[in-house]
Amino acid sequence: MNDTHSLDTLIQALRRLPGVGVKSAQRMAFHLLQHDRAGALVLARALQQAAEHTGHCERCHTFTEGRICAICANAERDATRLCVLETPADQAAMERTGAFHGLYFVLMGRLSPLDGVGPRDIGMQQLMERAQDGVVQEVILATSFTAEGEATAYAISEALQRRGVRVTRLARGVPVGSELEYVDLGTIAHALADRR
Amino acid sequence: MNDTHSLDTLIQALRRLPGVGVKSAQRMAFHLLQHDRAGALVLARALQQAAEHTGHCERCHTFTEGRICAICANAERDATRLCVLETPADQAAMERTGAFHGLYFVLMGRLSPLDGVGPRDIGMQQLMERAQDGVVQEVILATSFTAEGEATAYAISEALQRRGVRVTRLARGVPVGSELEYVDLGTIAHALADRR
Repeated sequence: MNDTHSLDTLIQALRRLPGVGVKSAQRMAFHLLQHDRAGALVLARALQQAAEHTGHCERCHTFTEGRICAICANAERDATRLCVLETPADQAAMERTGAFHGLYFVLMGRLSPLDGVGPRDIGMQQLMERAQDGVVQEVILATSFTAEGEATAYAISEALQRRGVRVTRLARGVPVGSELEYVDLGTIAHALADRR
Repeated sequence: MNDTHSLDTLIQALRRLPGVGVKSAQRMAFHLLQHDRAGALVLARALQQAAEHTGHCERCHTFTEGRICAICANAERDATRLCVLETPADQAAMERTGAFHGLYFVLMGRLSPLDGVGPRDIGMQQLMERAQDGVVQEVILATSFTAEGEATAYAISEALQRRGVRVTRLARGVPVGSELEYVDLGTIAHALADRR
């Protein structure tokens, strides 16, 4: 129906959000139009702002609005330890433990040949250069303990050890099959202490 | 952190969507920024368009961009029957059955005193006027079969019957395709009482 064109367009657009199907998209659209038009405009502006202003840190690849993110720019962090993670959410979880004071490299994904995600997509080359800056003494692999996360850790570990870089992995205190983002903080802290 | 201000703002804004908590909002924001920036801009535009151009039909209160929605404006619909529903989603479901050819009145909610939703919020007065236009011969109540939906149907039914309007309610019964063993007892009892 032509008289609900912009509503239909909104429902279609909401379906681009991960985990949102037709029913959820309808519910969201109706809610915003009926009860929270201000919220719809706030969200519209936030989406545009974030899409236009958020880039990647040149050093660690996480999201940032500047050239270098706040953590990489912080001179008080221990630059000899480099923690490799899959996503900014994983990084946020690690930061919340308060147990790690080094720097990060965020892969923004993980190796997944079936989905066409190869070494280039996770910045493997940049990670190699980053890890051999002459300051980093230890690379701590904190990818997820899933099949793909383990494969990613293995590939990175192989490549770094070939270049003589010391590599450790979060201890298997983290339950196998779970994603770091959802693990309780104490477990993450223990796994950090027991890294091998 | 200031260097992720627009990302944080986006995550907060996404939480205004119904059913979206912190984790989902993070996941959505990361997904859009990492894999679908075009989608973020499409969604931003769709939100703005819908919020600015979608209003309510003067006759049935559903969402429309014109003064009158396509169904109300359709002269081929049976104007003697008026079906009262809670939401545009319910209306869409009724339309998909292909079994109803009359007109609608969409309450855009249901009576819920605990949430502060009263008769005025569901357009009770407009419904009374709509039902007494001299053409409508039957008002079919198709609100949900929940406590609030039933209370809403009861209130509307009382008010309309006092004005001499013929009111019917969707039949309660066993859902098509279900096995009796798994149907709740109240439904079976109603289906038995309403047998035909």
